[in-house]
Amino acid sequence: MKFLRHGAPGAEKPGLLADDGTIRDLSGHVADLSGAALAPDALKALGGIDVSGLPVVDAGTRLGACVAGTGKFICIGLNFSDHAAETGASVPPEPVIFMKATSAIVGPNDEVRIPRGSEKTDWEVELGVVIGKTAKYVSETEALDYVAGYCVSHDVSERAFQTERAGQWTKGKSCDTFGPIGPWLVTKDEITDPQNLGMWLKVNGETMQDGSSKTMVYGVAFLVSYLSQFMSLHPGDVISTGTPPGVGLGMKPPRFLKDGDVVELGIEGLGTQKQTFRADR
Amino acid sequence: MKFLRHGAPGAEKPGLLADDGTIRDLSGHVADLSGAALAPDALKALGGIDVSGLPVVDAGTRLGACVAGTGKFICIGLNFSDHAAETGASVPPEPVIFMKATSAIVGPNDEVRIPRGSEKTDWEVELGVVIGKTAKYVSETEALDYVAGYCVSHDVSERAFQTERAGQWTKGKSCDTFGPIGPWLVTKDEITDPQNLGMWLKVNGETMQDGSSKTMVYGVAFLVSYLSQFMSLHPGDVISTGTPPGVGLGMKPPRFLKDGDVVELGIEGLGTQKQTFRADR
Repeated sequence: MKFLRHGAPGAEKPGLLADDGTIRDLSGHVADLSGAALAPDALKALGGIDVSGLPVVDAGTRLGACVAGTGKFICIGLNFSDHAAETGASVPPEPVIFMKATSAIVGPNDEVRIPRGSEKTDWEVELGVVIGKTAKYVSETEALDYVAGYCVSHDVSERAFQTERAGQWTKGKSCDTFGPIGPWLVTKDEITDPQNLGMWLKVNGETMQDGSSKTMVYGVAFLVSYLSQFMSLHPGDVISTGTPPGVGLGMKPPRFLKDGDVVELGIEGLGTQKQTFRADR
Repeated sequence: MKFLRHGAPGAEKPGLLADDGTIRDLSGHVADLSGAALAPDALKALGGIDVSGLPVVDAGTRLGACVAGTGKFICIGLNFSDHAAETGASVPPEPVIFMKATSAIVGPNDEVRIPRGSEKTDWEVELGVVIGKTAKYVSETEALDYVAGYCVSHDVSERAFQTERAGQWTKGKSCDTFGPIGPWLVTKDEITDPQNLGMWLKVNGETMQDGSSKTMVYGVAFLVSYLSQFMSLHPGDVISTGTPPGVGLGMKPPRFLKDGDVVELGIEGLGTQKQTFRADR
């Protein structure tokens, strides 16, 4: 199933993408795609509803982030060996984790704001993992039982804020609108192997990233287990698992986003995003 | 005014500390101490209620974190020159910021869990700043208009997780129960100068930290303004502004917390916390 949230920012309603390509409203069946509604069993029950009886949503309706109630937006750094190489870093001996502010989350096709003073706003297509049940000290074998599904996550990054403005990456990762998530929360049953998904990103139509989750160093099950050793993961938490090569910082010379640039990105089976970047004045 | 939240974990109700030392319930007047209720004007209106008519809460009732709906728990690193020195670091040229998971937040006197595998769990008394209104690109002059008030924040830290386990401090800062907040959210009018408050912490009765917010490098107004240049601050967000000297990591030899240790801490005018540390098995 492909779940989604539709409507104006802050007033999104739950929905799903039907097999006929229409968006259907689920607000008669669930309040939002958050908390207990994200448990794998709860999603399965929602998926069992007769779609033909669900109201059709206008095709042009805005999509919000595909999950609500995100308490933690955890990112994994340098998790593709070829991306690590392009940034001049080596693969870390265990996952590098950092937080993105949840206030950065927006819909998959919302405008992204380049913050004041930014000169190095960069792109990163990433596989997002949405937690469905509280996980603490879980093993790698059982880790996927705690996952609701997957989504496209755009880990927009300001490289100067991230690395040139006094320590800790969160500063360059947490700007408003730097976290487009969606279009869909795709349940696990639709993704046979999360470690073999094509991932791509284009800037103004030009392909910049063209990779696969198969070059991920630490895979999804390992990451869920690993993170749960440090902290409880709760329903709605999102793990953004790192980016393949092709970011602007890695180019020679480096290339960054400017006002008016259009970024499109997608992951096999998870849909696509498209954002226009606009500079804050 | 001193606002607080009382009751069982996850079911806290809003309240206040009356001048006679009793805890009074505010749930007939406000749903919780979150969102719009934290706006300085809203808090002022709550403070105008005739306390004698409010129900008295049992003195032994558990206190929760003094604020709800915290979307971001932002910490400032190395923000006391003497603490930077004890850790062997120099004062950063601009604030170092990192995130603590909001899932780490607990009440001021709740048990703190030492996570599995931890050998370097450490203490840090900090001045917490609670945001009352959304702040974006605000100046230092107007910054305090966006602050609801102050609280004691215990930035519990696992030093090996923080610095020896592959990059980015959040890993050692985000463990469950590593964020006791409270007992009270003290409104701004009660704190004449947030940059002149005594701060102390004891382990098993022995004084470890005995400092003052006057040695803070980057003050509260500067920090609110600074952070708002990177991201919107929302009502309920908490900024933990750094710790004075005397942490376990800075001792020769270093000293860390173990199962059964009792930590007490407080800040002038903001109340005290007391936690027993227990090791997760």
